[in-house]
Amino acid sequence: MAIDLNHMRKGTELLKRGFAQMQEGGVIMDVVTPEQAHIAEDAGATSVMALERVPADIRADGGVARMSHPDLINGIIETTSIPVMAKARIGHDEEARVLEALGVDMVDESEVLTPADPFYHIAKNDFTIPFVCGCTNLGEAVRRVVEGAAMIRTKGEAGTGNVVAAVQHARLVTAEIDLIQRSTTQEFETIASTISDGFRRLETASEHLLNVVDTPFGSLNDVHAGVLEILSEVREMGRLPVVTFSAGGIATPADAALLMRHGMDGVFVGSGIFKSENPVTTAEAIVMATHHFEDAAKIAEASTMMAGRAMDGLEIETLDVRMDQRGW
Amino acid sequence: MAIDLNHMRKGTELLKRGFAQMQEGGVIMDVVTPEQAHIAEDAGATSVMALERVPADIRADGGVARMSHPDLINGIIETTSIPVMAKARIGHDEEARVLEALGVDMVDESEVLTPADPFYHIAKNDFTIPFVCGCTNLGEAVRRVVEGAAMIRTKGEAGTGNVVAAVQHARLVTAEIDLIQRSTTQEFETIASTISDGFRRLETASEHLLNVVDTPFGSLNDVHAGVLEILSEVREMGRLPVVTFSAGGIATPADAALLMRHGMDGVFVGSGIFKSENPVTTAEAIVMATHHFEDAAKIAEASTMMAGRAMDGLEIETLDVRMDQRGW
Repeated sequence: MAIDLNHMRKGTELLKRGFAQMQEGGVIMDVVTPEQAHIAEDAGATSVMALERVPADIRADGGVARMSHPDLINGIIETTSIPVMAKARIGHDEEARVLEALGVDMVDESEVLTPADPFYHIAKNDFTIPFVCGCTNLGEAVRRVVEGAAMIRTKGEAGTGNVVAAVQHARLVTAEIDLIQRSTTQEFETIASTISDGFRRLETASEHLLNVVDTPFGSLNDVHAGVLEILSEVREMGRLPVVTFSAGGIATPADAALLMRHGMDGVFVGSGIFKSENPVTTAEAIVMATHHFEDAAKIAEASTMMAGRAMDGLEIETLDVRMDQRGW
Repeated sequence: MAIDLNHMRKGTELLKRGFAQMQEGGVIMDVVTPEQAHIAEDAGATSVMALERVPADIRADGGVARMSHPDLINGIIETTSIPVMAKARIGHDEEARVLEALGVDMVDESEVLTPADPFYHIAKNDFTIPFVCGCTNLGEAVRRVVEGAAMIRTKGEAGTGNVVAAVQHARLVTAEIDLIQRSTTQEFETIASTISDGFRRLETASEHLLNVVDTPFGSLNDVHAGVLEILSEVREMGRLPVVTFSAGGIATPADAALLMRHGMDGVFVGSGIFKSENPVTTAEAIVMATHHFEDAAKIAEASTMMAGRAMDGLEIETLDVRMDQRGW
């Protein structure tokens, strides 16, 4: 499902989205050491996500999770030839600025870290570096693109090895895109207004602020105009106007293929690689299944390649923290 | 209770249901090694279910349970001459595709594994391989047949060695079939609508989606037409139009005979064989009791054959996870 670059806007935005498009059809893997980055690169990852702890460990440790130490990120940048991404907290513009200064290729404004702002995400249009953001439905995806995200990923439920939340979010986004394409003008405007209401979080925290305050992304009129513009693109293209990956809970080659079948452009694999019994074969198998997701024999071959167990997983119902409910 | 094949639809569906019909009157046993598959075959099992862990162990281990490794399934396929079934997660079409590519004879879309899709089951009509699915009541059974299941089994409560949930589901299905046969046209349509409402799970997850989105099995009108058709067959035949087994908690020859008396066409025995003290005699005794369920002397003989204890069981009230509540 290649995106026509002509549909995209000009200048910096084109460059940002162009970088994201280079990831298409690929697998982006979480790594915590230069050695893991090498394994990921050798297995055919299109990028690595440099971080201190994979989501499963962040979940197990509890507490506040923040941007990783620059030494760790630099260590991985220096030893890999593929692009390096890193995570900033939701709404923490300064962590993003640090990552940009370090020479990271893309910032993931991630719900896997503890959110830093209860009202707003990072003003991503103010940056030169491209961002990827999570979503659980079409509204979140559109708001993130209006704020300047060059790439979207479903949130799934990170660190669980349980693919059900990723499927949930892929199905919701797809169904809502279908809805937008079938909607009358009036329905379209109602949906757009509902999505724009998601920018009013600050107002709802104080009765004095109703309808008054600008967002970090412009006035409420500006962001509503942005929502209408992005939603019109969605209606025209039948998909999000940015590269859309799946993330959260992908642990097997069949999981990766399942999400590709759901129309995703590629997958992030977090804990699934390095919490499996044999990360080298898991990484290779997931890359193979993602590339050949339409070929059942190849997915079977990839499933057979797995030497040792996939990561142990967690039932969604038993979780203390639902990371996918961070962000809005 | 032989099914007249003329009542069945044509082509692939006939073949799929024909395979299921070959299982009639039989016992299908869970096995985790080629050696266990031999014991099952020698005892007279009509098929084996190849999996990494029996439900009792999946329950004890907790976490996410997925499709078994292809090496294990292949190992069992290569050493047995009876059909081999294997489990895919609810809604995980790609695990089913892998099993089909491996040459498995039937896929069990099973609640014993962790569901992969919160809204929909696998689109089974898109496959050549036949599927068996679980049910706790008539509505679930009908939805699964509309989706393409060639065989139904009650869910019971897998891994407990406790037959009470299997009896519950058998009684509910039987009573609801009885109700359908007695219903007025208006009652019939009300029941059909209630059953069709079970396909609307995605809608209820987003206020925007009400009454709009298609299911993976066709539009809401299509699936409702399917429900009406299957329910009409149920009314005409006085039973489900596919082979119907019992599963979940069957641990003794008398348990198997009890479910056969409840009108089931055969039984799945999961943990009951290889968690018993003497699997060889347990397997033989359960096969004998299933074949001769109308002959109390034979069931007594089968009960006497048991050398050693049946599997230790669990009270339903003390369970952390109710597998029978997965799927809808």
